[in-house]
Amino acid sequence: MQKRYIISFILFVKIGVAQVSDSTMLRTIFDFYLTKSNCYSNLEYLSTKIESRLSGSPGAAKAVSWAKQAMYDSGADTVYLQPCMVPHWVRGRKETCFTKNSKNKVIDYAICALGNSIGTPKKGLSAQIIEIKNYKELDSLGEKNIKGKIVFFNVYFDHKHLSTGACYGETVTYRYAGPSRAAKYGAVGSIVRSMSSINNDFPHTGVMGYDTSVCKTKIPACAISFSSADKLLQELKENPQLNITINMGCEMLADELSYNVVGEIKGSIKPNEIILAGGHLDAWDNGQGAHDDGAGVVQSIEVLNMFKTLHIKPQHTIRAVAFMNEENGGAGGKAYFENTKKNNLKHIAALESDAGGFSPRGISVDTTLGAFKKTLGWASLLDPYFVQYITQGGGGADINPLKKLGVPLIGFQPDGQKYFDYHHTSDDTFDKISKRELELSAGVIGGLLFLIDTRGW
Amino acid sequence: MQKRYIISFILFVKIGVAQVSDSTMLRTIFDFYLTKSNCYSNLEYLSTKIESRLSGSPGAAKAVSWAKQAMYDSGADTVYLQPCMVPHWVRGRKETCFTKNSKNKVIDYAICALGNSIGTPKKGLSAQIIEIKNYKELDSLGEKNIKGKIVFFNVYFDHKHLSTGACYGETVTYRYAGPSRAAKYGAVGSIVRSMSSINNDFPHTGVMGYDTSVCKTKIPACAISFSSADKLLQELKENPQLNITINMGCEMLADELSYNVVGEIKGSIKPNEIILAGGHLDAWDNGQGAHDDGAGVVQSIEVLNMFKTLHIKPQHTIRAVAFMNEENGGAGGKAYFENTKKNNLKHIAALESDAGGFSPRGISVDTTLGAFKKTLGWASLLDPYFVQYITQGGGGADINPLKKLGVPLIGFQPDGQKYFDYHHTSDDTFDKISKRELELSAGVIGGLLFLIDTRGW
Repeated sequence: MQKRYIISFILFVKIGVAQVSDSTMLRTIFDFYLTKSNCYSNLEYLSTKIESRLSGSPGAAKAVSWAKQAMYDSGADTVYLQPCMVPHWVRGRKETCFTKNSKNKVIDYAICALGNSIGTPKKGLSAQIIEIKNYKELDSLGEKNIKGKIVFFNVYFDHKHLSTGACYGETVTYRYAGPSRAAKYGAVGSIVRSMSSINNDFPHTGVMGYDTSVCKTKIPACAISFSSADKLLQELKENPQLNITINMGCEMLADELSYNVVGEIKGSIKPNEIILAGGHLDAWDNGQGAHDDGAGVVQSIEVLNMFKTLHIKPQHTIRAVAFMNEENGGAGGKAYFENTKKNNLKHIAALESDAGGFSPRGISVDTTLGAFKKTLGWASLLDPYFVQYITQGGGGADINPLKKLGVPLIGFQPDGQKYFDYHHTSDDTFDKISKRELELSAGVIGGLLFLIDTRGW
Repeated sequence: MQKRYIISFILFVKIGVAQVSDSTMLRTIFDFYLTKSNCYSNLEYLSTKIESRLSGSPGAAKAVSWAKQAMYDSGADTVYLQPCMVPHWVRGRKETCFTKNSKNKVIDYAICALGNSIGTPKKGLSAQIIEIKNYKELDSLGEKNIKGKIVFFNVYFDHKHLSTGACYGETVTYRYAGPSRAAKYGAVGSIVRSMSSINNDFPHTGVMGYDTSVCKTKIPACAISFSSADKLLQELKENPQLNITINMGCEMLADELSYNVVGEIKGSIKPNEIILAGGHLDAWDNGQGAHDDGAGVVQSIEVLNMFKTLHIKPQHTIRAVAFMNEENGGAGGKAYFENTKKNNLKHIAALESDAGGFSPRGISVDTTLGAFKKTLGWASLLDPYFVQYITQGGGGADINPLKKLGVPLIGFQPDGQKYFDYHHTSDDTFDKISKRELELSAGVIGGLLFLIDTRGW
């Protein structure tokens, strides 16, 4: 018994010392992030100096060059481009949408084409509009009532959810899959209420996909702003036979060659074991993509700068990855997975930041129960830095394919209450970024990578 | 032993049931706040329809009338005005500030007078400017170097603090007490770098006080925006003998009669025991006071609406208090204390929300250790609603006097990373408010009052 107590005591002291040392190191890491990091200025450059960077665009190509240089500047010993073929969808002319009231007055609505949608004829597409509240209603109305019409999916966020991601998750099917499901009944166009937390006049774009197993016909699909949707409902109430005209010049061009940008600092002890932090470099063309996902990109790059500036030699290889084409295809995530598999690369962890540049709130961890429990052991270290929740959950769209290789995944979760105010709109601009919030979250990401590197998983 | 186990089991079941019931009730409360509450629309009205509401102003009088009606509309069975004499300081003409460079070119700076400051002569005040980094430097330079000059307190937030409140707490003495300390050495004016988290051109006002025990002479005092302060430093570098001219038309008028607005729902079981939620109705004249502290006022009023709409009859008397004159005198808080003392009113808890309308983050509790430990028992109930921290700490400026009567105090602590971006500036406007963040924090306040009412303290 005596012996057991002594061992316990030694263990306690050892853990105690490690804990103090980690907590001191985390404090040093946060001092760096709050006073010396470049993520805010990097994000300013990416958001405001490079034009829209949707996959396949000249802006995306410029963003790739910028990320490569930024990674070198941040201390990467190697940076390389990982090729992937990406869809090249272009928005074309500014979209318009209008109805006419009983006095023949034109009422305009703010819309934007959904990513991957076909356009309308040049003179626009005019048809009667029909409001649909859910798929059940769509299916019950059927071809008899839908054929030849433009369907208006009028779905709202359920604000009872504490997570806005849950609101989005419930409704986004109407944006993504609604067009083909409407076309199946002969609809000629699809309009969806913007996936928005708030009532304003910014339409929210986002990806849609034609499902040819549901319907072979492709119809133009757009989103209407929250307040324009309300205005449209009012007009529909006054005239249930209301005709609407939408005009969209978008089209899908041939695939383009693009790249993930991968920057790394070789591990000093286990160079063949990788710890990854990533965000996606592509962003919707209508805004600056500051929150989605410029923030995740600069936070990932800043991890390199942290190791460099604090003169920490990582034991494992640290990788910052700026993924391409998260928004409308996921080609970058797939290419990264294929490359990892082909070269039999070992990742001991992959973290993704793709939920905006807001204050830290938590992480979701997708790994074995044992490793998850180890992560829970970090809770007291991370608690002072606003990490409230460590939960079991998904990693992120770009790193999720790595799960098939058994890689433990972490999804970084900042405070999400305002994310869907800006998400996929022209209002997702750099001035919506708080320097301190961005840096604190970057600090959590840097701190986590430090813990994984020193403590293993 | 057997008996003890049985008692433990019964206790466990009982606590378990109470916990489930409270947690279900909290969920109902948050459903209300996220879908039916009026705090956002109330804040819109208060911020945008009532002009600036600094104590003693016509705007403040209108705000008092509005709050009274809003409390009745929200379900108060009694609303009354609690008189207090408040200072009536007015800003007067728009402040100006300039220097001239070597080419005689005028360089303008964004400044604003500090609350309670005297003005300058109509033609302005011109003198040599001297940069001071801290009081130690001021004291060591002394009268020989300070006399006849305008002192520029060039103090920065130390961003290593995780709490912006800590940054503010360290530097605000230069705004409040700096003028008298500079006047002691013969300074003729005082300029302080704005207490700002960020680099922009909004000057931050705030209260200052002349301390006649330090110096009988009163000198004009203003704040300069962060970026103008940088510009001024540049000019000073080029010309260390630089003259500066400031022009301020502010003055202190005679005290005015004003009011705290107190709305209550009488307790059904213990009507003589009060639970209070409050914010302050007055706000600096330069902005809309949306975060500081319109948010706290509407969140406090919404507690009444919660009890009414959810048909919960509170056991204790629930009071919403819109305090007057928190910003430049604290007359409302003192009047509330005096009234409480005189009438021997029993408060079982007082909560103040005066840190902006942001996402919930925690509460600080100022009470006995026993009661604090009871509060910690609520942690798991509040954790799903983004309450990460329950700490021992202060209540708030308006309720702090009640501590002398032994009242347990709670300071509501939302996420504070952006508070000092807007604090006391013309940029503290309604458009900076997130509806969901405001409502979630209001929900925590409502939920806490429910817990205190049903569980006692």
